[in-house]
Amino acid sequence: MNVNGKPQRSIWVKGDDDKIIQIIDQRYLPHFRMIHEVTTTDEAAKVIKEMYVRGAPLIGVTAAYGMYLATLEARESNVGMDYLMAKKDQLFNTRPTAVNLPWALEVCIDAISKGSNADERVKIARETADKIAEDDVEMCRMIGVNGLPLIEEISKKKNGDVVNILTHCNAGWLATVDWGTATSPIYHAFEAGIKIHVWVDETRPRNQGYLTAWELGNHGVPHTVIVDNTGGHLMQHGMVDMCIVGSDRTTYTGDVANKIGTYLKALAAHDNGVPFYVALPSSTFDWDIRDGIKEIPIETRSEDEITHLQGVVEGNLGKVQGAPTGSPVVNYGFDVTPSKYVTGLITERGVCEANERSILDLFPEKQPIA
Amino acid sequence: MNVNGKPQRSIWVKGDDDKIIQIIDQRYLPHFRMIHEVTTTDEAAKVIKEMYVRGAPLIGVTAAYGMYLATLEARESNVGMDYLMAKKDQLFNTRPTAVNLPWALEVCIDAISKGSNADERVKIARETADKIAEDDVEMCRMIGVNGLPLIEEISKKKNGDVVNILTHCNAGWLATVDWGTATSPIYHAFEAGIKIHVWVDETRPRNQGYLTAWELGNHGVPHTVIVDNTGGHLMQHGMVDMCIVGSDRTTYTGDVANKIGTYLKALAAHDNGVPFYVALPSSTFDWDIRDGIKEIPIETRSEDEITHLQGVVEGNLGKVQGAPTGSPVVNYGFDVTPSKYVTGLITERGVCEANERSILDLFPEKQPIA
Repeated sequence: MNVNGKPQRSIWVKGDDDKIIQIIDQRYLPHFRMIHEVTTTDEAAKVIKEMYVRGAPLIGVTAAYGMYLATLEARESNVGMDYLMAKKDQLFNTRPTAVNLPWALEVCIDAISKGSNADERVKIARETADKIAEDDVEMCRMIGVNGLPLIEEISKKKNGDVVNILTHCNAGWLATVDWGTATSPIYHAFEAGIKIHVWVDETRPRNQGYLTAWELGNHGVPHTVIVDNTGGHLMQHGMVDMCIVGSDRTTYTGDVANKIGTYLKALAAHDNGVPFYVALPSSTFDWDIRDGIKEIPIETRSEDEITHLQGVVEGNLGKVQGAPTGSPVVNYGFDVTPSKYVTGLITERGVCEANERSILDLFPEKQPIA
Repeated sequence: MNVNGKPQRSIWVKGDDDKIIQIIDQRYLPHFRMIHEVTTTDEAAKVIKEMYVRGAPLIGVTAAYGMYLATLEARESNVGMDYLMAKKDQLFNTRPTAVNLPWALEVCIDAISKGSNADERVKIARETADKIAEDDVEMCRMIGVNGLPLIEEISKKKNGDVVNILTHCNAGWLATVDWGTATSPIYHAFEAGIKIHVWVDETRPRNQGYLTAWELGNHGVPHTVIVDNTGGHLMQHGMVDMCIVGSDRTTYTGDVANKIGTYLKALAAHDNGVPFYVALPSSTFDWDIRDGIKEIPIETRSEDEITHLQGVVEGNLGKVQGAPTGSPVVNYGFDVTPSKYVTGLITERGVCEANERSILDLFPEKQPIA
């Protein structure tokens, strides 16, 4: 999407030197837009591990370009598949929980291993990484194409008045390559000239909502940042027409694991008759799990994310300690929204209801295990 | 309640010099416990206006002691009721929205005006301020006495296992003189030897939950700080046995206006069968309002509370900018929880259900206007 009026992706091959991968160093967002150059596999591993890049899709793509850089290194040093396998393991060990990471690495190494010499491997690795990136862009684009009519419909019902959409966390282009997931229908609606306004949940403790606000602001989409406590009040007063959030994992029965706090917004939406949509690439469906609340493990994250707040102090990134010294803290990263509170799932293939039958109608080739 | 093992109130007359009022400068909490001395009415007005003290009950008591200081000044300068009326107006204009402030000032000026000379006025003013403070302590104590059996009952059902209580914001002793409102049943349960643990909502944007955590920690009550997004997840997993929150205004039909985000926790409690109690002094009942959502005006507060986060940087209080520059922000201070989600109201007179009939049974002398 646009930054300073120009199209921008979260990762790309440098225009005048295709041995350099460029990323936005997201550790500095939303305050500073720093472009970071990745020229070695070691560097690719570092930017994943140290969260210069974040979001499962972007992590997968970064790893794929890391494998491309590995083939360049292998050609330079005249080493073979052993080196590439070691680099694959190195990249794999950066963020073991993100599902796209091992998947992208497997796709890359399978393809690369078919090359019979160093030049071929470089060519295949580059094509594979490009394809993984472009496939992600296309998948996100289709989520937007499929979600757009839902916003259009509300706009029509409101006779063209502003459609107010609430979102939580950052399921935006910064977490993917372009478009984002939850934001893709929003960007599509904006591009289609529909009047929209987005309520952006701050999303404590990591405040990923600030990234969403930064994205929307740069693309020119009207939005307002609110604290996570506010959505219920807005919905009680008719100030939200629909919610669209992302998903980290979705059961084939329609339960949605997403950033902590999503469930509370779904409850408020249900209580006030506000449609609650979840936008997701179908790769986040879990075909093994029937009961999301009972079966999806919820990650406990660092206490520091709660006790210390990051931002800008006197022009530089800094942190303040907010919580009192000595008070215990616990930081659950996600919660599960039961399917009954989900109006629909927006996927790259189309929109379905959040129940087993509707999901399997859209994905008839899938066979749930549980 | 206790701080460093010793009983502490939020405001008191200095032991060795009764011309000095001492308060905790709450701007530095939860990080630094600074005692501030108030020796003039001007200073009393300042500490209210600049939020050294906060919470409607404590503001009222501080104003009352401000009037006591005014009588000392009047005696010193040999001036009369005109001076005291002017000082009353000065105190009144510090925080015009807090209901206890004008009430306390009226009580004080009515009493003081009965004094026939400066010495009498000083004596009356001191007695009146002391009485307002002690009445507040007693009211809060009785909320705890009445709320205690609710916690005892859960403890018995759990065969003495830890009772997990979730609270939002700071309805603690720092907002009153002692005991607090929502915290009073908690302190009473702790003193009674019931095993309890308190989940403390951070309560963005002002993070008053940190004050609650500081209170509980200093009194030795087991607790854990969570971000506001977390409560729903905890309730889904049986980790909350009851919620107790405070109230800024309660309709005679049982709708509860309280810190923004309270409504979301009430929804989650309802969805998971967790009892949701509101502790309040009966002075916060509004006998004029039938429909809380439609009729209670919700204050919009400073954007800075959202965009900038206060805490400790390198040993001193400081702020960081969290939200991106240029993104609009809106800061609603309160929301309204409909009575149907409120299990009961804990008042100084007893516990009642959150409906007109039960409330009027407990307060038969009241006649709703609406």
